[in-house]
Amino acid sequence: MLLRVRAAVAQLTAGLGAGPGAQPPAEPRGGGAGAGAGRESPPPAAFCRPAFLQLTPEELRRADDHTGRAVQSPRDGRRRLPWSTGYAEVINAGKSQHNEDQACCEVVFVEQRPSPRGCLSSREGSGELDGGRKGFYFHYWALFDGHAGSGAAVMASERLHLHICEQLRELVEILQDPSPPPICLPHDTQTGSADPNQMSNEEDCGEVPNDAVPRFHLEKAVSHESLVIGAIENAFKHMDEQIRRERASQHLPGGCCALAAIYLMGKFYVANAGDSRAIIIRNGEIIPMSREFTPETERQRLQFLALLRPELLGKEFTHLEFPRRIQPKELGKKMLYRDQNMNGWAYKKIEEDDLKFPLIFGEGKKARMMATIGVTRGLGDHDLKVFNSNIHIKPFLSCFPEVRVYDLTQYEHCPDDVLVLGTDGLWDVTNDKEVAGVVMEVLTNYEPNDPCRYTMVAQELVVRSRGVLKERGWRLANDKLGSGDDISVFVIPLGGPGNYT
Amino acid sequence: MLLRVRAAVAQLTAGLGAGPGAQPPAEPRGGGAGAGAGRESPPPAAFCRPAFLQLTPEELRRADDHTGRAVQSPRDGRRRLPWSTGYAEVINAGKSQHNEDQACCEVVFVEQRPSPRGCLSSREGSGELDGGRKGFYFHYWALFDGHAGSGAAVMASERLHLHICEQLRELVEILQDPSPPPICLPHDTQTGSADPNQMSNEEDCGEVPNDAVPRFHLEKAVSHESLVIGAIENAFKHMDEQIRRERASQHLPGGCCALAAIYLMGKFYVANAGDSRAIIIRNGEIIPMSREFTPETERQRLQFLALLRPELLGKEFTHLEFPRRIQPKELGKKMLYRDQNMNGWAYKKIEEDDLKFPLIFGEGKKARMMATIGVTRGLGDHDLKVFNSNIHIKPFLSCFPEVRVYDLTQYEHCPDDVLVLGTDGLWDVTNDKEVAGVVMEVLTNYEPNDPCRYTMVAQELVVRSRGVLKERGWRLANDKLGSGDDISVFVIPLGGPGNYT
Repeated sequence: MLLRVRAAVAQLTAGLGAGPGAQPPAEPRGGGAGAGAGRESPPPAAFCRPAFLQLTPEELRRADDHTGRAVQSPRDGRRRLPWSTGYAEVINAGKSQHNEDQACCEVVFVEQRPSPRGCLSSREGSGELDGGRKGFYFHYWALFDGHAGSGAAVMASERLHLHICEQLRELVEILQDPSPPPICLPHDTQTGSADPNQMSNEEDCGEVPNDAVPRFHLEKAVSHESLVIGAIENAFKHMDEQIRRERASQHLPGGCCALAAIYLMGKFYVANAGDSRAIIIRNGEIIPMSREFTPETERQRLQFLALLRPELLGKEFTHLEFPRRIQPKELGKKMLYRDQNMNGWAYKKIEEDDLKFPLIFGEGKKARMMATIGVTRGLGDHDLKVFNSNIHIKPFLSCFPEVRVYDLTQYEHCPDDVLVLGTDGLWDVTNDKEVAGVVMEVLTNYEPNDPCRYTMVAQELVVRSRGVLKERGWRLANDKLGSGDDISVFVIPLGGPGNYT
Repeated sequence: MLLRVRAAVAQLTAGLGAGPGAQPPAEPRGGGAGAGAGRESPPPAAFCRPAFLQLTPEELRRADDHTGRAVQSPRDGRRRLPWSTGYAEVINAGKSQHNEDQACCEVVFVEQRPSPRGCLSSREGSGELDGGRKGFYFHYWALFDGHAGSGAAVMASERLHLHICEQLRELVEILQDPSPPPICLPHDTQTGSADPNQMSNEEDCGEVPNDAVPRFHLEKAVSHESLVIGAIENAFKHMDEQIRRERASQHLPGGCCALAAIYLMGKFYVANAGDSRAIIIRNGEIIPMSREFTPETERQRLQFLALLRPELLGKEFTHLEFPRRIQPKELGKKMLYRDQNMNGWAYKKIEEDDLKFPLIFGEGKKARMMATIGVTRGLGDHDLKVFNSNIHIKPFLSCFPEVRVYDLTQYEHCPDDVLVLGTDGLWDVTNDKEVAGVVMEVLTNYEPNDPCRYTMVAQELVVRSRGVLKERGWRLANDKLGSGDDISVFVIPLGGPGNYT
């Protein structure tokens, strides 16, 4: 990712960075009980790998070696990841000192928040689990691809699942109740931004949501699924807020892309903010579970914002897109352009204003917003500015993920059906079809009940994208350049031998 | 469409209606030579049907009868539509005085614009056609679904193809040259907004675009196809501008959805702004060629604009979406909401501001923006305001179509492959699959070379959506309510017996 960020001039200017609609931040609370939930923040700039790798100091040094680029996976005999998930990673070829990818895999218990006056306690369906505590578990896998430093990725890998847990705590009873979610709740059944002063209002005490509240004319039905999506979206927002608040004390100058898969009550929720990618391979068929957010794919959103808020462009940029830079001597000629409401191109007469640098410029992996950044969603980057200027990038970035849902119960999965998550280091040199080919090829070499098989797939995917070190650098089997980026891959089995509890 | 617009309080307030980025309007010029291009504008509010129907006064009266709802099609023995295209329409069941749908079908010659100093005349590939005139033809079919009056739909049906022609005139040589379009042109090779004062600049005289201009580093390749898309997009913008300028003198209080199919150089360009729909049926398979633009499908664009420009909401609306109206007594409770960057739902504490009416409200056919309009793209509506207020709707509407491209040369089409265009009167009661079923069923009853067969399909589609008049109104075969809306349908054959010139 570092290659995608040209200049992250860190200036601690709070305020401007917060996107529109941001709400007061809330600290994550101790709702999670995952193995890595209590992992301590490393000292600034320390090299750090996912806790589940359980690397010894010697292994850690080896993982940090840009020359050998040894592939790292959970070792046999140590703790196995849930569902026998496969994981592998490798450091970059030297573009940054350390591996700026981070990964997290957790099983998190979401404990129902105590309801002070029992308003929700009489409802049916709230399961008692885990020694009398009411709640449910979710499984969680996530990849964070850092840029301009590893701090944001490290913090997000430690905290995002806790923010998701925190958002879901409000919904424990509602999600366990098969009837449609209540549109309106008494004000004391939730947390976060609730005003304690409102808690003494008497009129709601006996009101049981969903049963007592009458259905109104033209009331929209909202599904349980969309509540989970909303919880994940807001968890990303709170995570981004936390990075904003703590970026000075924790030394978090950069940002990260975030890709998370949450398994909850029979469904996978895949949330993506950035240019990592998730695909399901089912019976040989490829089902895309994410799309990338880049200056090219988000062009119209970015141009629309720039059109409505031209002051964000600092008199340096134009919201119009041109196929190349315009030279001053071309004034008065006609140049191809695209405005925010166009998908096609047309000619316009070049005016003075068109000599400014285009907001979106370049193609493919070289596309940049404000000549600075190649991804347009993610966490952090609150201090990112255009090089040598006072123009902030953050107002154009979105911390909100797109969440796609896959219902695991709608299909009988075989042991070869998997969900693959990979950072752009994987996808830059390998397409969906090639990944599916490697998955099927490797899995046939192992018994369906061999718990190592998904790790073997993850390793093979990383090795094939990294390539082999030759005289002219890291080369793939076809002699093309291998990925010089950090590469991280999860391979999650969708049907046996995983234990789905 | 009238049902979808609650209050079109016509006030002639120019200026506010123009969307962002609108440019000075340009009059369409006489580039077109289609049969209906010279059709006179009707007197205000006069009943008018497409010229190609060639209705006698008696037939016109019959077409205007809400009780009989006779289906209208081009008559045998009169002029046949290009490619033996089928067409049928029927008036609504009484919701508006006249049929507010309009249709147009033309073959338009795009004549190359004279280049004053011959800069473009030496290029290869510009075909000489039509008695020495340089240019090319395009085929054009369009449906316009008017609301709050038929004026905008009538004007658009008379002019949109001329605006498209005008935009394409600039591109005649470029589109006929197989080499990539030039990024930059000398300033005297185009029209419209070109400044005549610039024409005397000497330095460009000998410059031949595309050959002499060097290719720059990081120059983006632009295809011929995206030039045509850009031309169509800008034609819609100019059409909307013309309606804005002439709405007072021509009595055009309302607006219209627009769906146009352009066949040009082997490709179909299907441009849609509104809630009409186009599908291709090929070998029994359905290929969607458009999507609908409604408050629901465009929610995030509308909310984003409202968030950035809250003054457009006039203190009456909130940009947040709620599943129903909130009552003042619910202040302090928690209500489900969606913000502009969310796809899921979450709970928020109800504050004073949330008591305002939601910008987007209702579901499906009942979804409305600002409690007023059920479509969010189209032409006209420059004076539309929220009922009993001074809040303008137009800034939220977009006149830009989404253009989808279908390459006719990539597949060998049989006589049963068709492109179907229909206004929402068709699709409200009939889905894609049912339409495909009717198409296949009817076509088997006619010889492949029978030129009537596509008209028979169009008629059958209209009849089945209208239903039959029974005691309890117009009823479908399954006894459900038939469409009480105006219904218009084109059925365009993709492979024989059409003559594709």
